[in-house]
Amino acid sequence: CDLELSVSLSQWKAEGKVAVWLRVPISLSRCAAAASTHGFTFHHAAHDQAVLALWLGDGESRLPGFATHQIGVAGAVVDESNGKVLVVQDRNKTKNAWKFPGGLSDPGENIGATAVREVLEETGVRSEFRSLLSIRQQHNHPGAFGMSDMYIICRLRPLTYDINFCTQECLRCEWLGLAELAKTDNTTPITSRVAKLLLHGLEQGFDKIDLTMEELPAVYSGMFYQLYHRQLPPTPKS
Amino acid sequence: CDLELSVSLSQWKAEGKVAVWLRVPISLSRCAAAASTHGFTFHHAAHDQAVLALWLGDGESRLPGFATHQIGVAGAVVDESNGKVLVVQDRNKTKNAWKFPGGLSDPGENIGATAVREVLEETGVRSEFRSLLSIRQQHNHPGAFGMSDMYIICRLRPLTYDINFCTQECLRCEWLGLAELAKTDNTTPITSRVAKLLLHGLEQGFDKIDLTMEELPAVYSGMFYQLYHRQLPPTPKS
Repeated sequence: CDLELSVSLSQWKAEGKVAVWLRVPISLSRCAAAASTHGFTFHHAAHDQAVLALWLGDGESRLPGFATHQIGVAGAVVDESNGKVLVVQDRNKTKNAWKFPGGLSDPGENIGATAVREVLEETGVRSEFRSLLSIRQQHNHPGAFGMSDMYIICRLRPLTYDINFCTQECLRCEWLGLAELAKTDNTTPITSRVAKLLLHGLEQGFDKIDLTMEELPAVYSGMFYQLYHRQLPPTPKS
Repeated sequence: CDLELSVSLSQWKAEGKVAVWLRVPISLSRCAAAASTHGFTFHHAAHDQAVLALWLGDGESRLPGFATHQIGVAGAVVDESNGKVLVVQDRNKTKNAWKFPGGLSDPGENIGATAVREVLEETGVRSEFRSLLSIRQQHNHPGAFGMSDMYIICRLRPLTYDINFCTQECLRCEWLGLAELAKTDNTTPITSRVAKLLLHGLEQGFDKIDLTMEELPAVYSGMFYQLYHRQLPPTPKS
């Protein structure tokens, strides 16, 4: 694939093209090595295909980068009847701190769906999405392969209450009083903060702490997207 | 690299290893092709290196995936003295709709820093981060290479007011009244929604619409992370 690439590159440069993309199946990876001698680098790769790019334009590359963030989502399942919230202690962490069950979003999975799925997998409790409570951004995240992490905590409403937790992932799982979770040192700073938020919401109304979600149609794809923001007061109808 | 890999794989399986990772420099990509005949696939790749993985354990792979989201950030720069906000019309879009200036986060860049940088690059206006207003999640996003997009709008405070916009990116750039932006059809649904939020904030106080940001130290790395949530009322000191 080397000779042909040389000829094509000269032609593309002459035509004023600013960038070249190459899709290389993993079985033909020797072509990626050949392309690299012409300056191509990996843009991204997944499954059985790599995508290489070469910037031909003036100055620094203005090619858009690939995905930079993994999305982790935890679910704070609040039982409003007794002010308790579902918490777990991870099996594989050094300090046994209480936290909300959660995990990484699968590709294409909505934030709320991740929270509901992870809560079910870890604790056996079924729940439904209510709102988004907090967002943490962290770079060079351990376990993110040098990339960044967005950690989102959602408020969920329980549909079932019996705990049947995953012993592979969790050491303990309990319904714990929010007041106790807000006070204990045996938790993470973010969990403690969100416990205080939830306690405030339980006392003053969850509209004081929620970001609510709305689905809107995307113009170009016909698919739906999810928009989260603080609720606007109802507008008077005229 | 093929024969050695065969021998090693047999040994690793016998030892009960559940997964194997391979780092392959682009110049040695023929090894990626060889590894693929043993079932390895691309986990990710960037610059001059690909990372391949093979699941050896029981059942489906439980290997964590790679980053799934790009982060786009826009800045709503609000001049509180006259209720105007900085808006642009993109040069390369079919419909010339008013929107807030913004763009993709660079790797390792904080949300607020992206907003401030993109506003400066597109409009020439200097500003500072105040709060996070809205989050949109969209999958199969055009221009995200089949991945997902998180689009975040921040509230910024202007430090300078003179517009000197980038004619490569923008067709027009203006300080537009929030009431007008909230009413016009010549904008996107999200921009319109956030204009209504900002108008509400301008009238009732931005504490009615903001998610505020706090920096907290990460336990394991000593670095800082950014946490965004609705403000808690001040706790009485005891």
